[in-house]
Amino acid sequence: MSAADGEPAVGYADVAAAAARLAGVAHRTPVMTSRTVNARTGAEVFFKCESFQRAGAFKFRGAYNALARLGAAERARGVLAFSSGNHAQAVAAAGRLLGVRAVVVMPEDAPSVKLAATRAYGAEVVTYDKKVTDREVLGASIAAERGLTIVPPFDHADVIAGQGTAAKELFEDIGPLDVLFVPCGGGGLISGSALAAAHLAPACRVIGIEPAAGDDATRSFRTGTLQSCRNPETIADGARTHSLGKITFPLVLRHVHDMATVTDPELLDAMLYLWERMKIVVEPTGALGAAGLFEGKADVRGKRVGVLISGGNVDLASLCRAL
Amino acid sequence: MSAADGEPAVGYADVAAAAARLAGVAHRTPVMTSRTVNARTGAEVFFKCESFQRAGAFKFRGAYNALARLGAAERARGVLAFSSGNHAQAVAAAGRLLGVRAVVVMPEDAPSVKLAATRAYGAEVVTYDKKVTDREVLGASIAAERGLTIVPPFDHADVIAGQGTAAKELFEDIGPLDVLFVPCGGGGLISGSALAAAHLAPACRVIGIEPAAGDDATRSFRTGTLQSCRNPETIADGARTHSLGKITFPLVLRHVHDMATVTDPELLDAMLYLWERMKIVVEPTGALGAAGLFEGKADVRGKRVGVLISGGNVDLASLCRAL
Repeated sequence: MSAADGEPAVGYADVAAAAARLAGVAHRTPVMTSRTVNARTGAEVFFKCESFQRAGAFKFRGAYNALARLGAAERARGVLAFSSGNHAQAVAAAGRLLGVRAVVVMPEDAPSVKLAATRAYGAEVVTYDKKVTDREVLGASIAAERGLTIVPPFDHADVIAGQGTAAKELFEDIGPLDVLFVPCGGGGLISGSALAAAHLAPACRVIGIEPAAGDDATRSFRTGTLQSCRNPETIADGARTHSLGKITFPLVLRHVHDMATVTDPELLDAMLYLWERMKIVVEPTGALGAAGLFEGKADVRGKRVGVLISGGNVDLASLCRAL
Repeated sequence: MSAADGEPAVGYADVAAAAARLAGVAHRTPVMTSRTVNARTGAEVFFKCESFQRAGAFKFRGAYNALARLGAAERARGVLAFSSGNHAQAVAAAGRLLGVRAVVVMPEDAPSVKLAATRAYGAEVVTYDKKVTDREVLGASIAAERGLTIVPPFDHADVIAGQGTAAKELFEDIGPLDVLFVPCGGGGLISGSALAAAHLAPACRVIGIEPAAGDDATRSFRTGTLQSCRNPETIADGARTHSLGKITFPLVLRHVHDMATVTDPELLDAMLYLWERMKIVVEPTGALGAAGLFEGKADVRGKRVGVLISGGNVDLASLCRAL
């Protein structure tokens, strides 16, 4: 990898190398189809279900890849992650598998199922009030004090390379696609997916979908300048990121074909549709791509369409309140 | 098939013949595993997920098999089913595939998602108030008036043979098991499953699980005499049957090794566990077998255990009220 001379910090070779590291460790998640969805959209739709990934989301791929690349001294000291949830669980799960101690900084209002799962994986959880505390500042101070290596949730070459392995598997399993819908928060998943698409299915249009209340990536994509959102209010808790990152933003500009937003009610509709018709538990953020498909954010009639379902860690009590 | 001389009305040969009829039509549903479940139970557990079957439940197997065996004149006149939900959708879906008109008699308080889905499959739905109307009497009068063939929900040789194909696939896909947990309502699924087990995995103990409020099958099994329950109050709407049937009861006595009950709170716990940990949408009745496993209704430590997940048609609004 090289970040010099305008070359991207991560490329397809890194995705392929991550896939080799993840082989036999990460689940090769199922690709699901639905006659009902095909009839509704007029397309042939393939859902890559990372909800069935270890720790319930694609995040395991990037976290494991990043931890696997640490040196012996770094592994011995341990790692720290700050995350709204799934990255936390992923780092905790990867840490346990690799024998690396993990400290996770999570907002105190994160879904209780995510807090509990992160602790169950053996990580030490430090909670904070996100209205008054900046997680990056808190995380950096703990990491410095204890000599821990920070594993960022998205803006890191090894994390992005790992996330790209989901789309790589999708293309390998079902062949080229015309359109691929990908949830977008900080841009780790969509950057990795776009790298995989550019190499394995160059004609495929990669469309990022983010919540309307946190439309920073769409505005960044349209203007070519990094935009941000402060604590967006959306049920898509995995996409409450403030902005794309220094590594993900250039990758999105270079390899993503369009960005669009969906409202929370549209997202909830998509999630319930996936639950009731396809019988798969998908978290709100995980349904962003499906919502983009259902809300017509790209022309799909007669086409082969992929949808990345990014995760399934949802708190049923919270969901019932949202309904 | 022969019902004479004490021979059962259906045998393994009928299950095998049904499997041939269903090949390429019914989904060969996935078998799912969970490290968390294995750790919790101390067993190696295989979930056969009929929640991913066409029309969302195992019922499609029996309905399609029964309709496929009708003569041309019967097909031309059409069929009638009375059902609390999944059998209705199954008959409707099978009818559409085979070009057979279906009339379905359903209780007016059936989950709205099931009523809507049955109509969406093209069936004519007749609703009734189950407090004042006997569905069998109503169904018989409509069938007689219109010359329709009744496809009973469970007490029918072709239906039982079709239901047995799920367990047949499970044994074929993962080999012999020590224990198999199966939801039990009217006994169609467990009769068929027990026939498959007796032939393919004779050492496997087949355990039927029913809701505590509708414990008629357990009492029938223990006493050897057919017992009944009138309109049991349980969230397991697919197991609100009044009793085992004339065909299923002898099969249960002959081939099932034990029967046990779980309470509604235990059932709800199991369902939520499957949703939150395995990310699969399972309806209350569909979680009966899993609840039996989790509540220790058989000794499973160190054993290979199968669990039939019978369906996934759940109304989220109702679920949220139950929570």
